[in-house]
Parts: sequence; structure tokens; C-alpha cells
Amino acid sequence: MTTPYFDKHRDKLDAAVAASASREFYSAYDESPSPRVYGESAAGEGKAAFEAWQGRAFPLQTPGSDGTVSTERSPFGFELGVTYPRAHDVDALLTVAQTGMKAWRDAGPEARVGVGIEILDRLHQRVFELANAVQHTSGQAFVMAFQAGGAHALDRALEAIAYAWVEMTRTPRTAVWEKPGKVPLTMEKTFTVVPRGVALVVGCNTFPTWNSWPGLFASLVTGNAVVVKPHPSAVLPLAITVQVCQEVLAEAGFDRNLVTLAAEDPADKLASTLAVRPEVKLIDFTGGNAFGDWLEQHATQAVVFTEKAGVNTVVIDSTDAFGAMCANLAFSFALYTGQMCTAPQNVYLPASGIETDEGLKTPAEVAAGIGAAFDKLLGDDARAVELLGGVVNDGVLSRLGAAASQGEVYVASRTVTHPSYPDATVRTPTLIGLTAADSDVYESECFGPVAYLIATAGTDESIRLFRSTVLAHGAMTASVYSTRNDVVEQMREAALDAGVALSENLLGGVFVNQSAAYSDFHGTGANPAATASYTDGAYVASRFRIVQSRRHI
Amino acid sequence: MTTPYFDKHRDKLDAAVAASASREFYSAYDESPSPRVYGESAAGEGKAAFEAWQGRAFPLQTPGSDGTVSTERSPFGFELGVTYPRAHDVDALLTVAQTGMKAWRDAGPEARVGVGIEILDRLHQRVFELANAVQHTSGQAFVMAFQAGGAHALDRALEAIAYAWVEMTRTPRTAVWEKPGKVPLTMEKTFTVVPRGVALVVGCNTFPTWNSWPGLFASLVTGNAVVVKPHPSAVLPLAITVQVCQEVLAEAGFDRNLVTLAAEDPADKLASTLAVRPEVKLIDFTGGNAFGDWLEQHATQAVVFTEKAGVNTVVIDSTDAFGAMCANLAFSFALYTGQMCTAPQNVYLPASGIETDEGLKTPAEVAAGIGAAFDKLLGDDARAVELLGGVVNDGVLSRLGAAASQGEVYVASRTVTHPSYPDATVRTPTLIGLTAADSDVYESECFGPVAYLIATAGTDESIRLFRSTVLAHGAMTASVYSTRNDVVEQMREAALDAGVALSENLLGGVFVNQSAAYSDFHGTGANPAATASYTDGAYVASRFRIVQSRRHI
Repeated sequence: MTTPYFDKHRDKLDAAVAASASREFYSAYDESPSPRVYGESAAGEGKAAFEAWQGRAFPLQTPGSDGTVSTERSPFGFELGVTYPRAHDVDALLTVAQTGMKAWRDAGPEARVGVGIEILDRLHQRVFELANAVQHTSGQAFVMAFQAGGAHALDRALEAIAYAWVEMTRTPRTAVWEKPGKVPLTMEKTFTVVPRGVALVVGCNTFPTWNSWPGLFASLVTGNAVVVKPHPSAVLPLAITVQVCQEVLAEAGFDRNLVTLAAEDPADKLASTLAVRPEVKLIDFTGGNAFGDWLEQHATQAVVFTEKAGVNTVVIDSTDAFGAMCANLAFSFALYTGQMCTAPQNVYLPASGIETDEGLKTPAEVAAGIGAAFDKLLGDDARAVELLGGVVNDGVLSRLGAAASQGEVYVASRTVTHPSYPDATVRTPTLIGLTAADSDVYESECFGPVAYLIATAGTDESIRLFRSTVLAHGAMTASVYSTRNDVVEQMREAALDAGVALSENLLGGVFVNQSAAYSDFHGTGANPAATASYTDGAYVASRFRIVQSRRHI
Repeated sequence: MTTPYFDKHRDKLDAAVAASASREFYSAYDESPSPRVYGESAAGEGKAAFEAWQGRAFPLQTPGSDGTVSTERSPFGFELGVTYPRAHDVDALLTVAQTGMKAWRDAGPEARVGVGIEILDRLHQRVFELANAVQHTSGQAFVMAFQAGGAHALDRALEAIAYAWVEMTRTPRTAVWEKPGKVPLTMEKTFTVVPRGVALVVGCNTFPTWNSWPGLFASLVTGNAVVVKPHPSAVLPLAITVQVCQEVLAEAGFDRNLVTLAAEDPADKLASTLAVRPEVKLIDFTGGNAFGDWLEQHATQAVVFTEKAGVNTVVIDSTDAFGAMCANLAFSFALYTGQMCTAPQNVYLPASGIETDEGLKTPAEVAAGIGAAFDKLLGDDARAVELLGGVVNDGVLSRLGAAASQGEVYVASRTVTHPSYPDATVRTPTLIGLTAADSDVYESECFGPVAYLIATAGTDESIRLFRSTVLAHGAMTASVYSTRNDVVEQMREAALDAGVALSENLLGGVFVNQSAAYSDFHGTGANPAATASYTDGAYVASRFRIVQSRRHI
């Protein structure tokens, strides 16, 4: 079998494998949407391609579909009006999904990985179109949609493919086994990677590509068929994804229905129907705790990878760069209106204040420092919207509204007017002052632009609360600010105990809510917020099995 | 931290890692119980050590225990009379089990792997004692108990440690990440392997060490505490195991209760209590389908590795070595009285007969050929018992009794008198003739010395039945005899579809029910008989998580 795509992409694969092992910097897809990188016409053409989908039927066929759905409205204030086949007959869908699996299995790891990376290349060619699609479904500002929804998502996908490649090829295709003895025994053995079955990918509203692609590509290149069930509010980025997957699969001679789109009306509850089907052996889910927990408990016929919600924490003990700390935190709170599973929420700091290069700062003064950083970052509406993006749904707005009554409003949320999209809902973050006694408030996730400054009896209590809150409720991220080595050490220890990644004294262009593919693990799987990590061995190893045969020679 | 045990065993570890990657022959523990290998006194001393336990209280302390249990009777016809602490207070047990986990985690992979292999070395020093303990709990004959229960089990344990080592060290301890740009961003990152929690190992009666050690050591060296819940009829081999684990852990400065024994009265149903405790994050189970399926469905807080039962299959199409084929099959049926999860049960062959070097052979003639091989292997009682061992429990005996009414008795079971243990229950296998219509009989496992010769319309139907039976009911092994390449190819294809390992035309000293550590995977996890495979990446990767921290430099 020739594997032209594999040969074409071999260098990129090798580089991704090497970076995943060294954890050094690597990126295969430029994160800058600049015309100097992508050419003068790329941005305009991508936007036009996105706009051309509006009001149209997306040209995908879903086996067993019945009618269409059109469920997307841009958080920037307009209906997308794209229609998709409405998945209906699950028997038919799963039967057709499996049709091409044998040929896909028999093609082997090289062919599958080659096709996988070729898909990424084609998606990269449409990265501006995808960025627009992500922007107008998630509410991310354009540059973030380009980066997180495009370039970084491609890197996370390539990372997953690289891990899958390593895992599939750590066992040789054939081996000769010779047992010494009076009569030596010699056997030839053949080892074949076989898929688990149908993989279900359940997408989310806020990161339709970044959170779906790792699981999608890890399952696909290990030989499984993939049914993509997008969030009804963020279908287009995954419809484009499935379209590209099908295009490359068909060109390579495989069944295009190895990847299918299962769009639905929100009332259809399609994910829960699909998740417990015996054909479905792998599930990747990003979303809320209720359904994630349900999947873990009920989809016992499948291996379930979930990324749910948690309570992301900052412990502030002291700093020698108060201004830079406030600026860094302000950026993390503001980025995409705090609508990231990695955005910090709980800031524990001593009621008596923290020592800084600008003197002792009480919680109110820390809040004021962050507030001043907000003013600088978000004071100008036109600049603010490029960081904040839009509010993704009414739930965020209502939590923001309720936050003011939860404690002392240190910094109030401000309504921002989008210069280009006057109907967009844009809000700046609010900072609410609480005490350690307010655990009923701060021990659950308040998804959106709400951060709590929680006054504690001191850093010891801050660390204690950090540990207990994360152990009980999970977290995707944690960070600490301290000039004292012993405090940083205690936090490292607590982070190991609680099973959450720790960022220490971030002051510059690295933010706690961002993780770099090939180097930073996203999620740990070691606390209640997630059972999966992008990407480690556990994320790929269960997606296939090895079946051997042996014979005398 | 110094890691003397790691340094001591580094060569062995490296050899095991290399063999697991090449799948070539390797063994670290000599499988021959010969005095030339182990010394003149080893066998006698081991037997004496075993006998010294009889009627005594085994010197282990189980946290939270209450009273003792004594539940073992040798299948060779005598009570062992060893008493063990009866696990009682599960809260106390799990609390104490976790006490040492932090220091064990912080010691790092080198220290843990060093301790793990040192434990194997100490178990190896007691291999004759262990062989006697395995013999007189499982009913295996001595040489098999020495090999499968001793040397091969040690190899499987080392293999699991080797896989865990590779998996833990594929991420570096530290890395420097530098993102280029106008202002380059530079971060130092630390990656730490953290355990999942408490691991529960549920042992079985027939292979108390071979089936328990891989999971035990994979969980232990990845940082978890391990609670070993032995089968009430096979406690001693695992009590010795736990004793050695505790001895080495304590010598290395760790908490001995990182490995504990949870013995029980059969009525205590301790495994189901432990399995759903929130502290328990990993479960390794070997045993029947009912409890295995229950675990998979109910212990959703844990990663569950099961090895249950299936219907192991032989498809006979043709052979150019009829006598050798019959001898090979006869050995596989007889070995340990068919009480292996890998023993063949269903033999599909054309009703019209198979072509052989001795002419066309009808099913009755094939049965006669295997029967003649039985006569040779098992005709002499003194020799027979060394292959058959003893019947492990009354269930086996009653299934054997019922088999005669299921079809045509081609070969009847014979009662063998053990020359040394007159009270032992020893039986030769029976061969029962069925037709393809008797699916109600042959589609479920008949654990014990019962094999079915199932007459089909031809090899096409044989392969079709093989595929459908394994897909529906699972299998640990499969084999084929055919002189035709196209038939072997069809069987390979069917084995890939059904997810079961295939042995082709075994004639000599390799048997379908035996798998070699480092080379053959035991189980695939790809069919209903098991969710685990000894040992692949999926078997170890989920037993720990990586928690990182990062900081500017």
C-alpha cells in the first residue's frame, strides 16, 4: 500500500512526536492571522466563505437524517441561518458509520495518520473561514477565534495524532520469537491495530474545534469511525470539519461516512441516545458536569473522556511586581469574557493584605489594582471587544447579574458597545469580594466573567481552601503569586495532591488559562473537572487494541 | 534521592523494555525447577516453607481487620488451615492504605520501579514455596504451578513494570519551553507522575499470582496503594506476595501498608463493597462474567480492568500432520484439566470430514485421534496427574458430569488416581460431539475439561460460527488448522473482526492456551471476554496522571 499523505507529512509528524517527548516549543500552524503570514487576500476570502454559508443548506449528508435544523445565532447579534441535516435514525447512522471501518483498519497506521494530517492541512487552508465560524458561534473575538479555534486547535489535533502514532507503532507489525532450548521454538508473529468501534464526539459551544479535534483525530487515526455531535449553537465549525474529513477520506479511497455530522434540535437529546448504543465504544465530551457525570456513569460500554467544569483558583500570597500581576490576572479574567474552562475564578488572599513592591495591599486594594488593569485593557470599547468577544448565552448574563448580590462588588461589570456589531452583548468582568465563610458561593463554578476575591485568615488557609475546593469540585487550572519559596513549594505540593496544573508568578505574556500544545497538558484527569488530558498516553492508548496471530516458521 | 534498587535492577528493566518493544524472546526468571538451575536444596526448602504455614496464623496485619478466616482446601485433598486477618472495617483499611501514598509518589518512578523489581527478586527467591502454595490452592500440578504461578508470573509482572516505566518516563521531569517572538517567552516546566488512588486487585482461584501480579505491580509502581482481595480458596500465594511487598517497602523506607491483604469469608462479598468506594480508582479483576460485568457497570468511579470468560475456539479445516495436531490439541485440552481461561472449548470442523495426511477424517475420527493422544499423554496415572493437576472445585465436576448428556460422547472422561494424593479429584477431558444447531450448548463457557467437536456444513460455516460466537460471547484464544492459505487468511480476518488472538497450525511445543510474556499479548480487550490485555499501553497509561507546574525563567 502506498501512503502518499503519510510521506508528505512525515516531517511534521516527526517534529510533533519529538516536541511531545521533549515538551519544548513547537507549532506547525502559524498563530498570526497577519497578511504577511497568510497573504493579503486570505482574511477577506475566509470571511466571504463564511458569509456564503449564511442562509444556506450546508452540503453534508447525514445517514438516516430527517429534515433539517438551523440552530445557530451569532453572539455578535445575527442569525447564521445555516441548515444541516437533522440526525434521526440512529440505527441507520451507526450502520453506515461502520461500513468503511474494515478498509480503514486494514489500511494501517501510516495511511490513517497520513489522511489525518492531510485533513489538518486542508483545515489550515480554510483557517480564516473556520475562524469566522468559531467567532460567530462561540462569541470569541476574531483573533482569538483564529488562534484558539484555528491554529492552536490544529496543533492540539496534530499532537493527538502524534500520540496515537507513537502508541500504535510501539508494537512492531511483525516479530520473530525464538525460545532457546534443546528443541528451540520459533514463531512468527503478526500484530494488528484494530479499532474499538464507533467514536462519539460531543462538541461544546465555546470551543467547538479546540475541544473536539483532539478526540476526533485520536479516534479516527486509530481506526474508528467518528460521529460528531455538535452543540446546537456551534455547528458550523464542525460541519466544515466533517466536510473536510469526508473530502480527504474520499480522495484517499476510503468511505466518507467514517466521519459524520449528527446535528440536532436541542430538544432531540441525541447525545444521550448515541452515548449508550452498543456500537459506541469511545466518547469524547466537553461540557457541563451534569451530562459529563451522567456519561461517566451510564455509558459503561464505552471509554469516556470528559472535560467538565471546575473551580479554577489563584492563591495570592505576595508579589514583587504588583502592577504586572494585576495586569496578568486582569487579562485572564477578561479574555473571552471569562467563558473558558481554564479561566480563574477564586482568588484566595489574606484579609490582612499581601506584601508587594508597592507596599501592603488589602483585598480591596488588590481588586483596585486589577480594576485599574481592566481600565487599561478594556477602557476603550473598540479595543475591549477584541479581548472580550461576546457573551455566549443568557446563562452567562444571568449569573453575572446575580453576582452583585453575592458579596461586595469591588469592580462592577460594564456594558461595552461593539463598534461593528451593535446587537452584540459585551460585558467586562466583575470582581466580587467574599470571605472564607462564603463557601456556598465560591465552591461551585460561576461560568462567565465573575471572579471572587476571597479574604482568608492567611496564606495557610488560602492553600488549605485551594486544596479542599479542587479535591471536591475539580479545577482545570491553578496559579500562585508569592515571593516566598516555601509558599510556592506548599502550593506545588497542594497542586499535586489536588491533581491540578500550577502556574507560578505569571507576569508577562503567558496566562493561566492558556496551554501550549506539545508542552502543557490541558487538564489532568486527576480531579473531578475532567477524566481526560490533552494529550497523554492515557488519552490515546484505549482507542484501539492489538490483535495478534502467530505461526511456526 | 538514591535509588539503590533501581540501579541494581536497571539491566533487567532495560531488557524487559527492549523485549516488550521487539516482541522477541526474553525471560528473567528460569522456568525450569531443576536442581541444576536452582540448586539441590531449593525444592525441598520451598516445600518445607509451604508446609510450615499449614495450620498457622499467617503473620500479616490487615488494618481494620476483625478476627480471622481460614478458607483454603487443597484440590489435592487436604485443608491448608492457614488463618488470615479477616478484613472488616473498610474505612480503616482504605485510610491506612493511603497513608504512605504521598511519600511513595514523591519518591519518583525510579525508586518505585526499583522497589517493584526488588519485590520480584524476593518472590523469585521464594519461588518453590510459591509454587507449592499455587499448587495447593489452584490444583495445578507442581511443574505448572512453578512455571505459570512462579517464573512466568514473575515475567508478566516485570513486563507490566516495564510498560509502566516507559509510560511514566515518556514525559521528562523538567523541560524548558521557549516561544520565539519579538519578546520570546521562556518557561521552565515540571512534570510529576501522580497516582490515581487506591488500587483494588481481585484475585482468582486458578491463577492467583499470574493473573494478579500484572495489575498489582502496574498499580504499585505508578504510585498507587494496592489492596489485594484474594479468592477465598487461593489466599496463600497472595499472602506471601503481600508479605514480600511489605518487607521490601519497609526496608526501602516506605509505608508497608501501601500493599495490604484483604482476606474474607466468601459470604463477606468484600470485593463489591471495596469496588465502589470513592477512594478506589483502579480495579483489576479476574473471574466470572457476572461479577466482571457488574464491576464494569457499577464501579464507574474507577478504571476497571477485567478478565472474564469466553468461548475459546478451534477451527479445523485440514492438516498435513494429523497426529501432531491431535497431540497438540490433546495437550491443550488436558493441561490443568482445561481449567484455564485460555483452554480451547469449541472445535468447529466439517461434518463431511477434514483432509489430512492420513486421509479424510470425519469428526468421529478426529475425536478418536485426539482420544488416542489422550491415551498417550494421560494413560499412565502417575504421568497424567502431572499434566492434569486436580479439579479445582465442585462446579467443574458437575459441569463435567452434565456434559455427557449434551451430545455424543466421543471420548469419555476418566477418573485418575493420584499416586501421592489419593483424595485428589483428577479427571481426564471429555470430547462431546455436537452439530451447528446446538448453539445453546456451545455458545457459553463450560469451564473445565469439556471440549465440543461441532460438525458444520463446511469451513465457511465454521469460520462464520467462530466469528459470531466470539463477537457475542468473547474469547481469550483462537486457533486454526488448515493447509490452505486462503482459509488461514479468512481466519486471520475473522480473528481481527472478532478481536481475538489467533494461533495457526500449532503442532509442536507451543500451545494455544499459553502466551509468552513480552511477546504474546494475553487477551485483547477487544471482545467481551476481557477489557484488559497483558500488557499494552492501555493497561498502564490510566494508572497515573501527570501534574505539571510552570514558571518564568
